[in-house]
Amino acid sequence: MFEARLAQSAILKKVLEAVKDLLSEATFECSDSGIMVQAMDNAHVSLVSLNLRSDGFDKFRCDRNLSMGMNITTMTKILRCASSEDTVTLRAWDNPDNIIFIFESPSKEKLAEYEMKLINMDQEHLGIPETMYSCVVKMPSAEFARICKDLSQFGEAITIACSKEGVKFSAAGDYGNANIKLAQTAEVDKEEEAVCIDMQEPVKLTFACRYLNSFVKATPLCAQVKLSMSADVPLVCEYSIGEIGHIRYYLAPKIDDEDEN
Amino acid sequence: MFEARLAQSAILKKVLEAVKDLLSEATFECSDSGIMVQAMDNAHVSLVSLNLRSDGFDKFRCDRNLSMGMNITTMTKILRCASSEDTVTLRAWDNPDNIIFIFESPSKEKLAEYEMKLINMDQEHLGIPETMYSCVVKMPSAEFARICKDLSQFGEAITIACSKEGVKFSAAGDYGNANIKLAQTAEVDKEEEAVCIDMQEPVKLTFACRYLNSFVKATPLCAQVKLSMSADVPLVCEYSIGEIGHIRYYLAPKIDDEDEN
Amino acid sequence: MFEARLAQSAILKKVLEAVKDLLSEATFECSDSGIMVQAMDNAHVSLVSLNLRSDGFDKFRCDRNLSMGMNITTMTKILRCASSEDTVTLRAWDNPDNIIFIFESPSKEKLAEYEMKLINMDQEHLGIPETMYSCVVKMPSAEFARICKDLSQFGEAITIACSKEGVKFSAAGDYGNANIKLAQTAEVDKEEEAVCIDMQEPVKLTFACRYLNSFVKATPLCAQVKLSMSADVPLVCEYSIGEIGHIRYYLAPKIDDEDEN
Repeated sequence: MFEARLAQSAILKKVLEAVKDLLSEATFECSDSGIMVQAMDNAHVSLVSLNLRSDGFDKFRCDRNLSMGMNITTMTKILRCASSEDTVTLRAWDNPDNIIFIFESPSKEKLAEYEMKLINMDQEHLGIPETMYSCVVKMPSAEFARICKDLSQFGEAITIACSKEGVKFSAAGDYGNANIKLAQTAEVDKEEEAVCIDMQEPVKLTFACRYLNSFVKATPLCAQVKLSMSADVPLVCEYSIGEIGHIRYYLAPKIDDEDEN
Repeated sequence: MFEARLAQSAILKKVLEAVKDLLSEATFECSDSGIMVQAMDNAHVSLVSLNLRSDGFDKFRCDRNLSMGMNITTMTKILRCASSEDTVTLRAWDNPDNIIFIFESPSKEKLAEYEMKLINMDQEHLGIPETMYSCVVKMPSAEFARICKDLSQFGEAITIACSKEGVKFSAAGDYGNANIKLAQTAEVDKEEEAVCIDMQEPVKLTFACRYLNSFVKATPLCAQVKLSMSADVPLVCEYSIGEIGHIRYYLAPKIDDEDEN
Repeated sequence: MFEARLAQSAILKKVLEAVKDLLSEATFECSDSGIMVQAMDNAHVSLVSLNLRSDGFDKFRCDRNLSMGMNITTMTKILRCASSEDTVTLRAWDNPDNIIFIFESPSKEKLAEYEMKLINMDQEHLGIPETMYSCVVKMPSAEFARICKDLSQFGEAITIACSKEGVKFSAAGDYGNANIKLAQTAEVDKEEEAVCIDMQEPVKLTFACRYLNSFVKATPLCAQVKLSMSADVPLVCEYSIGEIGHIRYYLAPKIDDEDEN
């Protein structure tokens, strides 16, 4: 038997909103250590890696390892039926055909059960090598989302250039061009407003706006986002999920600036 | 002469929002005792019955009985031109071709008059027999609206099953199925949050989501909704309208569970 | 060199929203005395006249007179990238091909530069004769916007009739007709809520809703609007822009009430 409970459904609702743009279905790997999802987006360009540790749940039981193929669109619909303060429980039997989502209101007077059919999916476990990155930028996630939105009005790609002084985002299009510079913050009142750069050597990489704009759907999960970059390897864009885990998005840079448009 | 005044247009605005989905035109029967509307929806499936008592108005005068055919779409547009705190007066002469809506701002400095042409409509007075119901459920109207919205994502019909313990709403669709159970509340701080069941014998009836979702447009009128059900007779879904009257929606159950979807 | 700075971008954002419906491109005339735009709308029916005085800017430098043709649609996109509390600076060189918009966050840690290509435009300077008007109405701008919106649901033209007692707005359509009367306010707590009429002789003029509804996009700029009217000459609809200038819209009345529909 598999059973996982969270006191508030809000986190799971936000996780679904953070992946539903990229994934229409995905395999949820459940084990003693928690729930893991690793999947390429529908266009097989970016990679999503979600990790929810068992000790972050209010209750977690997984008698044997399960690989459950879930329709993310249906799952999002189901989660939208939960109020944010509802307790949510996921339950499945061994060798399951279905997974059950149970939402309980705080007063216990409302109990909703949604039974969703599982789907068969090919297993593809993707090894992601541990990498040392040339630049790691931590910055307010809302600021990153705003910059991606603003710049993607003007071009299809965003160049991120990172140096000791700060990080520069730029885009160019028919109308002219746009540059946004963020300085590393000396000191800030609130840690979540800090811009913090850990640089070994400068990098300058270009990414497709379309994917960045899908990644920033995770903004409600965490006040800060961590961008890890090295020349010629995929960007990692990471959001913590409370005390329970994290979601990481991987996106390869555009190979040649000249090809950009 | 006919004249009816309400100190705040907000109630009339909400009444229009509550009927405009179902009715594109309707006959308003005005008499000494108030204003009454009884009409089948455009598809002739459900029935709307609206009752506004003369003593609920701030001023009411009706020298002779009038049957005025009104275009609900136009009337909704006109009411949207009133601010919620405006006084609203309806005025018509005997044998009228027009009805006049007068909106006065609280400061009296703005006076708006909208004259709407009446339409000829066939009279159909529908006798609704008084019935004793097997189950009468009173519950928060916002909860009922939420349940109808949530479940209609997953199927075209909602089954309502009522027993001593509580009321269960369910829907089934391609993805699996959904069940929402509400327990009768033992005691609540606020009366409007109570779920209260008056049961003679259990019932289990299935209704088309589409109509339920039109009925719940009345939610802003009242914090509680009353659902009256018996086997093989139409559901009555009733909302009080302040101290002035009520709106009732009637909908026949689907005859055979097997036909449902 | 041309450089103009405003401590808060909010005013410029609102100015753009106020003209973008009517103008897709326009020539900005910059001189020692400030920035001026005069342009017919895209359909060559109404006229927009914008005046921003140099002394209203926090910094203003204009070494030689410049006529810069700007794409208003692109400029609106760029201004939407500024936060309302950002400082905005416009900068161009003599004989420029480009204009640069610089947005600085209050903390100075974010610096955004948008470079926009200028466009060649035919110069058309329109002489607007100074006129004495029969009626000048000052009224709350939000009320004027509301009236235009409400009445344009019912007809394509609005008749404004002004007399000593007040001002009457009316529209007629297939459903009947609508009249909104505003009385001159005797005394008001807040000056911005006043309706104030300065009348030499009564006027009654009819205008196309479509243009009035574009003019009221300037509502966020100022709590009051000034309507100046005389028989057979264009209406002037004026909004102050803080301490820095104003925007005026001109619209000729419909010639014959009979032609109205």
